[in-house]
Amino acid sequence: MRRELEVSLGDRSYPVHIGPGLLDDASLFAPHVAGRTAAIVTNTTVDAMYRPRLAQALERAGARCLAIGLPDGEAHKSWQTLDRVFEALLRAQADRRTVLVALGGGVVGDIAGFAAATYQRGIAHLQVPTTLLAQVDSSVGGKTAINHPLGKNMIGAFHQPVAVVADTATLASLPERELGAGLAEVLKYGAIQDAEFLGWIEANADRLLAREPDALGYAIQRSCEIKAAIVAEDERESGARALLNFGHTFGHAIESATGYGNWLHGEAVAAGMALAARFSVAQGRLAKADAERLVRLIARLRLPVKPPAIPAPVWLEYMGRDKKNEAGRVTLILLERLGHARIVKDAPPAALEEFLATA
Amino acid sequence: MRRELEVSLGDRSYPVHIGPGLLDDASLFAPHVAGRTAAIVTNTTVDAMYRPRLAQALERAGARCLAIGLPDGEAHKSWQTLDRVFEALLRAQADRRTVLVALGGGVVGDIAGFAAATYQRGIAHLQVPTTLLAQVDSSVGGKTAINHPLGKNMIGAFHQPVAVVADTATLASLPERELGAGLAEVLKYGAIQDAEFLGWIEANADRLLAREPDALGYAIQRSCEIKAAIVAEDERESGARALLNFGHTFGHAIESATGYGNWLHGEAVAAGMALAARFSVAQGRLAKADAERLVRLIARLRLPVKPPAIPAPVWLEYMGRDKKNEAGRVTLILLERLGHARIVKDAPPAALEEFLATA
Repeated sequence: MRRELEVSLGDRSYPVHIGPGLLDDASLFAPHVAGRTAAIVTNTTVDAMYRPRLAQALERAGARCLAIGLPDGEAHKSWQTLDRVFEALLRAQADRRTVLVALGGGVVGDIAGFAAATYQRGIAHLQVPTTLLAQVDSSVGGKTAINHPLGKNMIGAFHQPVAVVADTATLASLPERELGAGLAEVLKYGAIQDAEFLGWIEANADRLLAREPDALGYAIQRSCEIKAAIVAEDERESGARALLNFGHTFGHAIESATGYGNWLHGEAVAAGMALAARFSVAQGRLAKADAERLVRLIARLRLPVKPPAIPAPVWLEYMGRDKKNEAGRVTLILLERLGHARIVKDAPPAALEEFLATA
Repeated sequence: MRRELEVSLGDRSYPVHIGPGLLDDASLFAPHVAGRTAAIVTNTTVDAMYRPRLAQALERAGARCLAIGLPDGEAHKSWQTLDRVFEALLRAQADRRTVLVALGGGVVGDIAGFAAATYQRGIAHLQVPTTLLAQVDSSVGGKTAINHPLGKNMIGAFHQPVAVVADTATLASLPERELGAGLAEVLKYGAIQDAEFLGWIEANADRLLAREPDALGYAIQRSCEIKAAIVAEDERESGARALLNFGHTFGHAIESATGYGNWLHGEAVAAGMALAARFSVAQGRLAKADAERLVRLIARLRLPVKPPAIPAPVWLEYMGRDKKNEAGRVTLILLERLGHARIVKDAPPAALEEFLATA
């Protein structure tokens, strides 16, 4: 079954196509690549599995193809890896009409998107996500970035793709941990915005873990719908878009403190959501039973509910560099009830420190 | 005498203030920095001369100041230097409300502007140019970039400043070569767009070389007016903005081939304009007398009219990576007459190669 939705951003609106086998559908690519160079950016793992098929579809769509291979993993979401993309484009004398095609997970999508935002001051890019996390979250919405040794996603740009093509058949071969990491973000959408969807995830947890195509297809569609609506309202995160960061303030600190790549992003977000829910309870914002229900669901999806051992000052140092912060105060996304999150800029620092010391 | 104009870009419009002593005028800065952190990005040369005064004005305007010093010169317009800005911002836990203030010439402005475009996916920046080149060209229009070893300004973003404050008193202490480099860009505006202005430059060349404040003030204003009109029409260089690249296709190749910094940007553009005018004649587009008049004026401003010795294949390699190119063809800006340039996408490659072999 094919599903399609739109991210509505005026003359920068674009479609999100979801379904099995889309990788081979030249008609989805033709409007964006016909008569142009398509530079496929991918990683060594994905390259062998899907690049030849995608290249064939792009060529049928009228593109000349170029392949740019990157090392795999969050530890490589760095300037050094980004520069490999620039170098390959420059050596090929790629001009401004070149389209970058990100084939892979969140790391490939973020690097290729940022490369597109900055190569010759901006060229087009197309997202072809092959992980659940990328299909439900990172490929949609135009956030691109690389990590800095001093903080995750600190260097980047808002640069919307011209289309997202999510081939759900690629999820069949996804490693178990990667599937879980994606489900963490699916869960997030329910937690912050849609209690009914959260109930659906609880009722369908086994089907999701078993990768039933219909269940995954619906989860991806609903996740993208929620994200698209929030992005359409607040593209550059001056307000509501920050809600999508639920679990991420704690999660980014976990990723940075443990070294990028040891915890998958989705795993860190899962533990971060459990912390955020518990801190919401500690702050008297959320009923304890609701937090427990969310934590149970996180665990049921085989995701971590406890963070690694991190000293409170280290937590605070990394959380102090979060992009949502203002005037030295940590901004948090907390829950008022399941399906309803709120941006909190005035959580007492002492209370947060005490909470982290016993987390 | 104070002069002011606007770059009209809808809700991203901004003022350009031109005049002596503006560095000390807190009222120009207050709308943009009050209650925020102002991170002054400058180079070692400019730091001692102007940073304390600017910091005082920013503090009077209600900002907290932070200073970020960079090494001086085009050779440092690199990722490594850019990363020093990121590292300083992250160590200071600078948030998204931070304003970067570029104090210096084109290199500082380009790096600070690109840092602002990409730090935490985009923060505000203010341009305080202290060289003639930056005042008439690089501080206005939102082009930001760093160089790549394989090509000049290849990595960057369009990111408009919130204001440009050009203190013309800073030009009194400018080294002779830097003054000339700025005059090359002034000349460019006349050559591509305004024959009357070109005549004015001829008539006032001695006053400009003697740095008479009124002459320089008018030259800066007229240059910024021409640039602002072109940028307002074509912000992202899909058309007319490419005209501003007159002399730059040859010029960038000179800079890249000789090693960044050996030729000043304006010097390379001067020789590039002479080449572009001669090639316009060779192509039968421009009268020989007009080309000679332009070359004489370039020489009169004490600027180079001949390029260094570069083998034709090296010329073509660097020109082949120009951002204006399409489908492997070099795009050139050629003159039809003085005051009227044209974007030429179909110059015969063989003719260009032959021309370069004897340039």
